[in-house]
Amino acid sequence: MANFFDRSALRVVLVAPRNPLNIGAAARAMANFGFSRLRVVNPYEVAFREARSAVRAAPLLAAAEEFTNVGDAVADCRLVVGTTSVGHRELQHPLRRLEYGARLIRRHLAEGPAALLFGSEKFGLSNEEMSHCHWLIRIPTVDLDRSMNLGQAVAVCLYELARDPKAVAARPEKLKAASAVDVEQITAMLLEALEQSGYMNPLTSGSTKTKVRRLVRRLNLTARDAPVVLGMLRQILWKLGAAGSDRML
Amino acid sequence: MANFFDRSALRVVLVAPRNPLNIGAAARAMANFGFSRLRVVNPYEVAFREARSAVRAAPLLAAAEEFTNVGDAVADCRLVVGTTSVGHRELQHPLRRLEYGARLIRRHLAEGPAALLFGSEKFGLSNEEMSHCHWLIRIPTVDLDRSMNLGQAVAVCLYELARDPKAVAARPEKLKAASAVDVEQITAMLLEALEQSGYMNPLTSGSTKTKVRRLVRRLNLTARDAPVVLGMLRQILWKLGAAGSDRML
Repeated sequence: MANFFDRSALRVVLVAPRNPLNIGAAARAMANFGFSRLRVVNPYEVAFREARSAVRAAPLLAAAEEFTNVGDAVADCRLVVGTTSVGHRELQHPLRRLEYGARLIRRHLAEGPAALLFGSEKFGLSNEEMSHCHWLIRIPTVDLDRSMNLGQAVAVCLYELARDPKAVAARPEKLKAASAVDVEQITAMLLEALEQSGYMNPLTSGSTKTKVRRLVRRLNLTARDAPVVLGMLRQILWKLGAAGSDRML
Repeated sequence: MANFFDRSALRVVLVAPRNPLNIGAAARAMANFGFSRLRVVNPYEVAFREARSAVRAAPLLAAAEEFTNVGDAVADCRLVVGTTSVGHRELQHPLRRLEYGARLIRRHLAEGPAALLFGSEKFGLSNEEMSHCHWLIRIPTVDLDRSMNLGQAVAVCLYELARDPKAVAARPEKLKAASAVDVEQITAMLLEALEQSGYMNPLTSGSTKTKVRRLVRRLNLTARDAPVVLGMLRQILWKLGAAGSDRML
């Protein structure tokens, strides 16, 4: 992976989560993106128990650590970052967009543990909880007042941490283009089929031929598809020839 | 927004979704990131009805269009992209990482409608459904065999479409640093407090002073925090002076 950092150095901290589905979704997103250390602060106990006992609960959830306050949950971290949907509160913290904040977090994770805090579904992080943070990040949603679902917010933040900026430019393996020989043979067979079908006007057939040649090249056929197209044309030509013979009879 | 494109040109297509919570989560993520056109193909009817009747169902969900097959659902689109967790199937399509694929989709959206397809929770997109796609994207999860939750996958894909690559470099508003005058006054008052508390050793006080001066500068105090710190020191000095006077009495 191009942007390497120690993913086990990140602590994902859910503060006062209420919904077992969200706790499970956070754990699932962590597993998807290679993070492992989940911490919960004052979860609604029924929800936490339910999330842990779900049939497919990840080992990650079984290993989740529980704390009674934010201070203890981040005690081993050198960087503590809160998430917020902003909105109604006036923030006392530097606020960074996720794209930029994630880069800073990645840099810190190369040096030691860092915590990423998510507040409760209903209220987000309280001012007291935020006061443990060095700064805050916000996911760039269009409507500042409309918060994200907790499980989705965790997924988006971890995706941004895990995404590879270099992959934007890295073209995927390109499919090999069909050879000029194949492309020309396809052109010739198509022209033959058009000829036999009575598509070609003798007066304009010269210009039609060059048009068809250009059209076939615009198809950007792949090396894999060329023999398939050739096979189709061969079959059509065979049938056209047979039809021609029929008429002859 | 730095990367502008017409978000209403994107059709988010859920193929055979089974879970009302996932349908609702997909709609919520769309609203979060400014997309509006939701289409569903052969949803599990009970789930679709339930999702639409949820108390806080977005208008977006009420306006969702329903289709019986993928072909009809993407008929007005010039680009059709499927999502996949890869895994067990051998793919017959070009596969692009989300980071790169999203860039291509954005470019197409500037010119006309495009569709982004998500398969059912259990099976993903079938080969027949995929055959309507020009190419596929995969979210860069660590374990190819472990699929993402549908609602989270939608959120991550739409986030990548909406994110601003320029925001990675754009520093946030920096907090104004404290003035040199304030920093030096803080240094002086701290030294005074240390003097009065008996912290200073007369033999080393010269070097202690320069150490303290450097330490205060390493704190990188902000203009906003400087008067607060000065107020604290003033109060402490007053109390130290009073304590001194007490002793005098």
